[in-house]
Amino acid sequence: MLQDLDREMERSGLEAVAVVGEDTSSNPEFYYVTRADILRGGIYLKKVNEEPTLVVSSIDVRNARRGAVRDVASSTDYGYEEIARRLPAARAKAQFYERLLREKGVTGRIAFYGHNEFNSLFSLVLELRKSGFKVAAEKTPHLFERIMATKSDAEIFEIEMVGRQVQKIFSDTAALLKRCKMRGKTLLHGGKRLTVGTVKSHIRTLFAENDLTPAEGFIVAAGTRSSDPHYGGEANDPIKTNQPIVIDLFPKGGNNMYFDFTRTVLVGRAGKELRRMHEAVAEAHDEAIDAASEHVKANELMYMACELLGAHGYKTVKSLVEGKIRKLEDGFTHSLGHGVGWTLGEKPSLTLFSKDEIRRGHVFTVEPGLYDRKVGGIRIEDVVAVTSKGVKKLSTLGYTL
Amino acid sequence: MLQDLDREMERSGLEAVAVVGEDTSSNPEFYYVTRADILRGGIYLKKVNEEPTLVVSSIDVRNARRGAVRDVASSTDYGYEEIARRLPAARAKAQFYERLLREKGVTGRIAFYGHNEFNSLFSLVLELRKSGFKVAAEKTPHLFERIMATKSDAEIFEIEMVGRQVQKIFSDTAALLKRCKMRGKTLLHGGKRLTVGTVKSHIRTLFAENDLTPAEGFIVAAGTRSSDPHYGGEANDPIKTNQPIVIDLFPKGGNNMYFDFTRTVLVGRAGKELRRMHEAVAEAHDEAIDAASEHVKANELMYMACELLGAHGYKTVKSLVEGKIRKLEDGFTHSLGHGVGWTLGEKPSLTLFSKDEIRRGHVFTVEPGLYDRKVGGIRIEDVVAVTSKGVKKLSTLGYTL
Repeated sequence: MLQDLDREMERSGLEAVAVVGEDTSSNPEFYYVTRADILRGGIYLKKVNEEPTLVVSSIDVRNARRGAVRDVASSTDYGYEEIARRLPAARAKAQFYERLLREKGVTGRIAFYGHNEFNSLFSLVLELRKSGFKVAAEKTPHLFERIMATKSDAEIFEIEMVGRQVQKIFSDTAALLKRCKMRGKTLLHGGKRLTVGTVKSHIRTLFAENDLTPAEGFIVAAGTRSSDPHYGGEANDPIKTNQPIVIDLFPKGGNNMYFDFTRTVLVGRAGKELRRMHEAVAEAHDEAIDAASEHVKANELMYMACELLGAHGYKTVKSLVEGKIRKLEDGFTHSLGHGVGWTLGEKPSLTLFSKDEIRRGHVFTVEPGLYDRKVGGIRIEDVVAVTSKGVKKLSTLGYTL
Repeated sequence: MLQDLDREMERSGLEAVAVVGEDTSSNPEFYYVTRADILRGGIYLKKVNEEPTLVVSSIDVRNARRGAVRDVASSTDYGYEEIARRLPAARAKAQFYERLLREKGVTGRIAFYGHNEFNSLFSLVLELRKSGFKVAAEKTPHLFERIMATKSDAEIFEIEMVGRQVQKIFSDTAALLKRCKMRGKTLLHGGKRLTVGTVKSHIRTLFAENDLTPAEGFIVAAGTRSSDPHYGGEANDPIKTNQPIVIDLFPKGGNNMYFDFTRTVLVGRAGKELRRMHEAVAEAHDEAIDAASEHVKANELMYMACELLGAHGYKTVKSLVEGKIRKLEDGFTHSLGHGVGWTLGEKPSLTLFSKDEIRRGHVFTVEPGLYDRKVGGIRIEDVVAVTSKGVKKLSTLGYTL
């Protein structure tokens, strides 16, 4: 939580932190500290146990004031124009940062955070180091990984709200599939052969109506192509009867929070192997959610899921890591889950090598899957939160195939 | 252009470049070199005058193969699991990169690029430097700023295609406004008072239907609130007659290219001052587009626009920089434009301090505006490209108020 920032700064031995938005790209850390839509970016600078300052381009001052930082300044206030007039671009930027750090009296260790083009900021930071500033790097999990991963109950509620919209959109899409007519292996929608393109358009429109942005896309993978867990689905892909359709939705809400939700559906009759896979995945999914609670180690949850799916006769990442198999193309080919909220890939990480421990405030996906290049893929994904009142599933839809 | 990469690497004195996607966030440089949707990210590594290698998580290998890099490897091929098993997370990552760089025989200067969380990659790069790798930083404009800014005719065509969709959406939205009924100062849409929310929903649905993603939002600013050039518009804001409505659309296309387009419209009658502002902005806009051509300095275009709007009696950034005024809240308060295509903020930059020169392949916005807290804002924005056949406007809609 943001309120832990000072304590975590002390723990990291930092006198100051700078969260930088160097350009117009999306930047979760910068949004996290500013809670404002600042198109051109800016610099959030905070000394330990002091109020932060937010410096933005003058065009963004009014946007910035709508956010969480009280002390908003424009770059003009720190002499940007005067510096930029007399120096080449790279030197001007460095000198501007130096002036800002000096005026704020930063002399001790400072660390820089935020999603930015690496070379540009690296070049700046080397200049600052040359001028005597003590710019430090923290080992993972760094300060912002730590505080962003532990959500308040209010933040968890925000994520849950996006989850409700996403589930409604899934249900609406499942209903569309149900309304299709079957003619042999063909599915007809409004008289035409159903394609992934039709389903994706439908979902895209529902996203728009709900003010959700599919910032990183979304997945509608049908038939054997669903055996590639990251295959997004092409518009021309046909959707046929008796074949799995993996629908994985991970949009950003109007409140800037992400959700991540997957169900595998099928129109017609599932073959024996698909049913067997679905049963195993559902079992692994339920077992992991039952076991998830504060202080449990994230890698143990992944370990358990591998054990269970292995016992059902499937290959897993664990058998690969243990050298029992050489290649892993079918089976449980990915990790059990990842933190979700401000991004789609935060702490905790539910991999075999994760060093994370499940903590109060963690919000993460549980998404076991099985893949077979001959029959397709099965994945079930829900979001789980560790609230102050215990572990809670933020998605509640059932998951019969 | 990407085909200039080797030449520009030599110019920058680099033996190798690494374009890194550390996480799932959007990353224009990583997409630029891979041309693939790789959800989990990866490492693009290229030595000068050699073929690049793309290393991704095994889950993304199939996605990666659909892109531009022929040599795709999984992190397992470079022993990731074996390393991760025996080392703490930060050290494991560094060792993995070290193994990769050694196997590829990188001994000279290497630079890292791509949009990533800064602290994480900085920490990694410091580890690599400790181990003897010569990780360098380039001054701006760095290699990828240079090559991404100079588009091929084919890339310009891709941007133009997004532009056509955006303009169609704008026209459709203008038609919606025209259909509204006027009752005094109130605008009625389907019997209800028209709000920004209604217009935004309409645009969002059209974006979805056209496979456009408003990754960084979009602007519908009505009335005096449009005097803040970066105010996005809240759902409850009323839209009234005789007041300016600034519609600024900057979505990402299905082809991953951005467009950026603004018109100011009004239902009813424009007051005298608004008409005067619109005339001045249109004049500045036309003059800048006429003057834009290869070898012209970007800051001169901005200078000219300031001169012209200043001559019309408005305050500008130029008067601020020259110290003639102390604050700039009304008038021409932002820069004339910016490069657009892979992002919304690339080279060339049309500011007073820009050191960029307009070059073959540049694609950029020309977007003068005037703002007055008492009456609102006026902005006209088109995209201009320097193709092999000369300068071309990529947006062609007219701009009467």
